[in-house]
Amino acid sequence: MNTIKSNDASLRTVTDVHIRYSDVDTMGVVYNVNYFLYFEDARTDFLLKFGMTYLNIHEHGILTPVIESTCHYDRPLFFRDQVQIETSIIQASGVKVSFRFDVCANEETKPRATGMARIGFVDELFQPVNIAHRWPELYRGLMNAYRGIPVNPDDFSEKSLPSVDSAG
Amino acid sequence: MNTIKSNDASLRTVTDVHIRYSDVDTMGVVYNVNYFLYFEDARTDFLLKFGMTYLNIHEHGILTPVIESTCHYDRPLFFRDQVQIETSIIQASGVKVSFRFDVCANEETKPRATGMARIGFVDELFQPVNIAHRWPELYRGLMNAYRGIPVNPDDFSEKSLPSVDSAG
Amino acid sequence: MNTIKSNDASLRTVTDVHIRYSDVDTMGVVYNVNYFLYFEDARTDFLLKFGMTYLNIHEHGILTPVIESTCHYDRPLFFRDQVQIETSIIQASGVKVSFRFDVCANEETKPRATGMARIGFVDELFQPVNIAHRWPELYRGLMNAYRGIPVNPDDFSEKSLPSVDSAG
Amino acid sequence: MNTIKSNDASLRTVTDVHIRYSDVDTMGVVYNVNYFLYFEDARTDFLLKFGMTYLNIHEHGILTPVIESTCHYDRPLFFRDQVQIETSIIQASGVKVSFRFDVCANEETKPRATGMARIGFVDELFQPVNIAHRWPELYRGLMNAYRGIPVNPDDFSEKSLPSVDSAG
Repeated sequence: MNTIKSNDASLRTVTDVHIRYSDVDTMGVVYNVNYFLYFEDARTDFLLKFGMTYLNIHEHGILTPVIESTCHYDRPLFFRDQVQIETSIIQASGVKVSFRFDVCANEETKPRATGMARIGFVDELFQPVNIAHRWPELYRGLMNAYRGIPVNPDDFSEKSLPSVDSAG
Repeated sequence: MNTIKSNDASLRTVTDVHIRYSDVDTMGVVYNVNYFLYFEDARTDFLLKFGMTYLNIHEHGILTPVIESTCHYDRPLFFRDQVQIETSIIQASGVKVSFRFDVCANEETKPRATGMARIGFVDELFQPVNIAHRWPELYRGLMNAYRGIPVNPDDFSEKSLPSVDSAG
Repeated sequence: MNTIKSNDASLRTVTDVHIRYSDVDTMGVVYNVNYFLYFEDARTDFLLKFGMTYLNIHEHGILTPVIESTCHYDRPLFFRDQVQIETSIIQASGVKVSFRFDVCANEETKPRATGMARIGFVDELFQPVNIAHRWPELYRGLMNAYRGIPVNPDDFSEKSLPSVDSAG
Repeated sequence: MNTIKSNDASLRTVTDVHIRYSDVDTMGVVYNVNYFLYFEDARTDFLLKFGMTYLNIHEHGILTPVIESTCHYDRPLFFRDQVQIETSIIQASGVKVSFRFDVCANEETKPRATGMARIGFVDELFQPVNIAHRWPELYRGLMNAYRGIPVNPDDFSEKSLPSVDSAG
């Protein structure tokens, strides 16, 4: 079905998706746009499980806009399906990171859908920043997750957060 | 910015987007997922302006699920932006059709974002159908729009609708 | 805080709410409109736990539009809150039923918000129907839940579903 | 149908609502929760037309959470309906303001639905503030709108904005 490359080395998370009644569309299946909401939760969960949160990131003057997102829909999801998303990193650098999402239902081996999101790092004026310099600990965390190296929670301790003053 | 191919030959529509206050996210810009809602309206508008409606399509036993969707985000949209989407067909056959969407703001020449949606034709059991056989008038309409041949409204007159009995 | 009456007799359900990242608004708290999505899930869960589903209802030609909905917001919900909704029936008749929702977080005793939804029973032309005549088993189930009488699952067995032909 | 009081004295706005294809639910009508999104736009439009914007308000350290919202649904809205919301103020004080919304379609005299939203004024810690003291110009604007006294745009000139330093 899909042409979104995988990266078997990456750390992986499995995130439960709770389908809301309002997620279902006039065709009786989960409305295609909602998959992107699920991806966002899966991505947040991935970062959280490896010690990073959007909140922390934003508090330090770095925004993380989506710069590309894609979903390939193979078979529909129904209200009663038990849905899980498997998340991995398929590309990472100091200026952006790309996630792959496999949308699985009811423990089937073949995903119902597969998606991708590319996230950029920018400052509050939406200018690109390189986190390898701006926040080396976050950079190291993402690169480790990408390569499958378990993240050391100490990398994301309070002391590792850059102060806003020194940022830049 | 983007790699979504264009098709200069296609008929084109320009659809106004009305940004809702609730469309704006915690970063102060239009939430990335909402672009896909705008695309759906732009697509509906495209079909409507050329005499086709989803309602008509569904009433005749053909569903039109999205099988792939993509958005490349270049610069963010703000609440006060005047947004228009330019829609064209970049690929068409009897079993699927692909639309391209250019998201333009405030009459700027460069789009803020560009997207794509590939739609399949299936029956109520989500099995693919070929509209070239199942509903030749719709097929002809899409192919004409793809090639830039103005659609003749008579192609979509009541008499052209396939009856449910003869469908298949 | 609120003036939505309670009915201590009613059967009650507790439904977990999973807050999505996209549920949070520009003020950093759960966007007020989303509470109504949570209410719908809580209501669906209530009916499901007592043997009734919207799907079954709709399949038998009865629609259940919301005819009134209300929410009193006391204190905001944050992304990390563990949220549960306690649902009960505060009014029931053959033509409509009203639910009360208490939105609780982190096992606090005082709800963060309290809501109400009144649902009508109509046919496919949106004309009111009286389920006491049209579907006595559903009526009995709701009245029992309202009065706190445990529902007998056999009341909602396949044989109890009215056939579409005999409906009316 | 409804028991939401009116205030004939209030200034009034009429706001166009653009129904999105995704606003329609599985019953083929506009999903009831979306009315609250329309209300928010109608409210923003009301404030904007009388010189006030949420953005200005937020920039000065005052948040405006919804503390109560209600909708009475009389007859459904369909995708093709031309919808307008008439907004007025039905109650106003230094600590909160309540709006009434009449949801009208296709120039019919009887609204399809009627709603209400009560907004509080709080600081960034969600503690109530009295705008009569904190921002007298905003207070005067709301009270004038409530009483039907045309707002003088000069009341909302830049010089009238309280500075963040002096706030409180």
